[in-house]
Amino acid sequence: MRGEFDFIETLRRRTERQAKAGNVSLGIGDDAAVVNSKNTSLVITADLLVEEIDFRLDWTTPQFLGHKALAVSLSDIAAMGARPRFALLSLGVPQKIWRTKFVDQFYEGFFRLARDHSVALIGGDTSRTPDRIVIDSIVLGEAQHNRVTRRSGAKPGDLIYVTGMLGGAAAGLRLLQSGKKIKIRTRSNGASRTTKLSAQEKLLRRQLLPSPRVRWGRLLGEKNLATAMIDLSDGLSSDLAHLCRASGVGAVVDASLIPVDSSISVAPLKEISALDLALHGGEDYELLFTVRPRKRALLPQKLGGINATLIGEITSSKRIEIVREGHTRALKPEGFQHFRRALPRK
Amino acid sequence: MRGEFDFIETLRRRTERQAKAGNVSLGIGDDAAVVNSKNTSLVITADLLVEEIDFRLDWTTPQFLGHKALAVSLSDIAAMGARPRFALLSLGVPQKIWRTKFVDQFYEGFFRLARDHSVALIGGDTSRTPDRIVIDSIVLGEAQHNRVTRRSGAKPGDLIYVTGMLGGAAAGLRLLQSGKKIKIRTRSNGASRTTKLSAQEKLLRRQLLPSPRVRWGRLLGEKNLATAMIDLSDGLSSDLAHLCRASGVGAVVDASLIPVDSSISVAPLKEISALDLALHGGEDYELLFTVRPRKRALLPQKLGGINATLIGEITSSKRIEIVREGHTRALKPEGFQHFRRALPRK
Repeated sequence: MRGEFDFIETLRRRTERQAKAGNVSLGIGDDAAVVNSKNTSLVITADLLVEEIDFRLDWTTPQFLGHKALAVSLSDIAAMGARPRFALLSLGVPQKIWRTKFVDQFYEGFFRLARDHSVALIGGDTSRTPDRIVIDSIVLGEAQHNRVTRRSGAKPGDLIYVTGMLGGAAAGLRLLQSGKKIKIRTRSNGASRTTKLSAQEKLLRRQLLPSPRVRWGRLLGEKNLATAMIDLSDGLSSDLAHLCRASGVGAVVDASLIPVDSSISVAPLKEISALDLALHGGEDYELLFTVRPRKRALLPQKLGGINATLIGEITSSKRIEIVREGHTRALKPEGFQHFRRALPRK
Repeated sequence: MRGEFDFIETLRRRTERQAKAGNVSLGIGDDAAVVNSKNTSLVITADLLVEEIDFRLDWTTPQFLGHKALAVSLSDIAAMGARPRFALLSLGVPQKIWRTKFVDQFYEGFFRLARDHSVALIGGDTSRTPDRIVIDSIVLGEAQHNRVTRRSGAKPGDLIYVTGMLGGAAAGLRLLQSGKKIKIRTRSNGASRTTKLSAQEKLLRRQLLPSPRVRWGRLLGEKNLATAMIDLSDGLSSDLAHLCRASGVGAVVDASLIPVDSSISVAPLKEISALDLALHGGEDYELLFTVRPRKRALLPQKLGGINATLIGEITSSKRIEIVREGHTRALKPEGFQHFRRALPRK
């Protein structure tokens, strides 16, 4: 069976031929598409979220879902070093859900996050569906022409960084799978009150209410600090492989430097280690980026309370490796292969 | 139960407040959203197509579906007087369909129409779905800043025109409902060979393989010929009501001038007349536009073989009326009310 990545590769080659004729400098195969006008670049992304594949209504709330639908697209725009400006939302809902408060509450979560990042909803579509919800979240961002940060700019010797902590979203998914429920706070989606949350609640929120690293992405783009960038949707091992493939380079990562989410210990991990979850778990929506060593001093350590952590270095070997307790091994991409964000079927 | 239009109205008011703060001159409530930069306007539309609501796989082909997904969005861009440039496509397919040639054939139809209009596919998303196909078609167009044609510019005395012939798509839908099948031609989607088609085949193709009036839309925008424009997706009576409401005007239409599709006679119409189908049937994807009387002479009669027909006049009365055999009656919007393009459930 053909995987999603093969298919995207075929589409990418096809659209690249088209794109060369126009003013598109980048088609399919990055976090977002780029259209260049005189001084600014328009950066566009679309993210499709399908009920029972990407989310389950018994695990989340309408507000959280509205937040997450926008968050995943904001994360793509951040990963291009761009500033998000406008959103379009296509929403398909079954008749029985249309009659409830679902749609209003969904937009409540969507608009709250949109307001936080000064993003205006300018369009979209609504449709009935036979029985499941489907959401397509489209975000447009802008950047200066020469400030768009692609996956393909990493060079041997560049330092590899990630924002925030890793593995929390995947641990949150495991909690949901084990039957844990998120606590719902009325009149707040709780994003600003995480300090008072239990470790378990934090993990559930990492999964259901991700915080896109919009400020980090924009800073790295505007100050031209990153040579390459991608957001962590599939998982560090997979997304680092995407970045390295696009750049034609390899990488070596130091396991002891990976910022593993400290809350993970409360999740039912069974055979998997917290480090493995940080390496291969998806949906953290942190940013993975590379920096020239001479620009290292220009990088802030924290932005809006979120760290950037040095985890390794780009190499010319084309291999992706991890150093763990003195041993160097291949770091195989073990994120979601065929479909991103694929949850188990009910 | 709340209808889709009420909901869009609520969203429109909300986004209008946001939009005033930014450089968006038009939010939700037209055929597409508009973002203004220095000299040019970016025009963006998204159209969600859901299996069993907007299409049925036993009625169409993957190629036709790929064509139609793009066509409905191109039609929205045309209705803004803009030139379509870029497309993004979000496609959700069940595992069992992903394994077939469906996706390749779908893109075949999509790319053929994209090529005809020099539109480049630059992005989108793919996802698995539990059991039905879902498509979100996003198209970006551009126009000179002061050439975007909104729904809201019609003034009393303006002449009302439609492109092409009306009612064919709704008649084609009735043929499909009565069990008629489209003939599939290998290696061609047949769009260019309509002269050799039977009346029945023509109607089926009007429904399954609509031709967006891209050349007409662009001409009307670029030459500043239309004061207001909308595409006929819901049906003439509904879409004229949308245009009049947005413009704060009324209209009077002459029934004898409506360009009723001559092939309709072969469709099983039962109690409904061909004129009623032309007035209320949806999905013709023709353009409805208004022209100042003094600009009438500048309007070509035909463009790419497609006529523009004078059907009535804008009035200051706020009523929408139809003159039929000497009698003037109210023309009530009888297109799809709650959801556009809503097909009957199986």
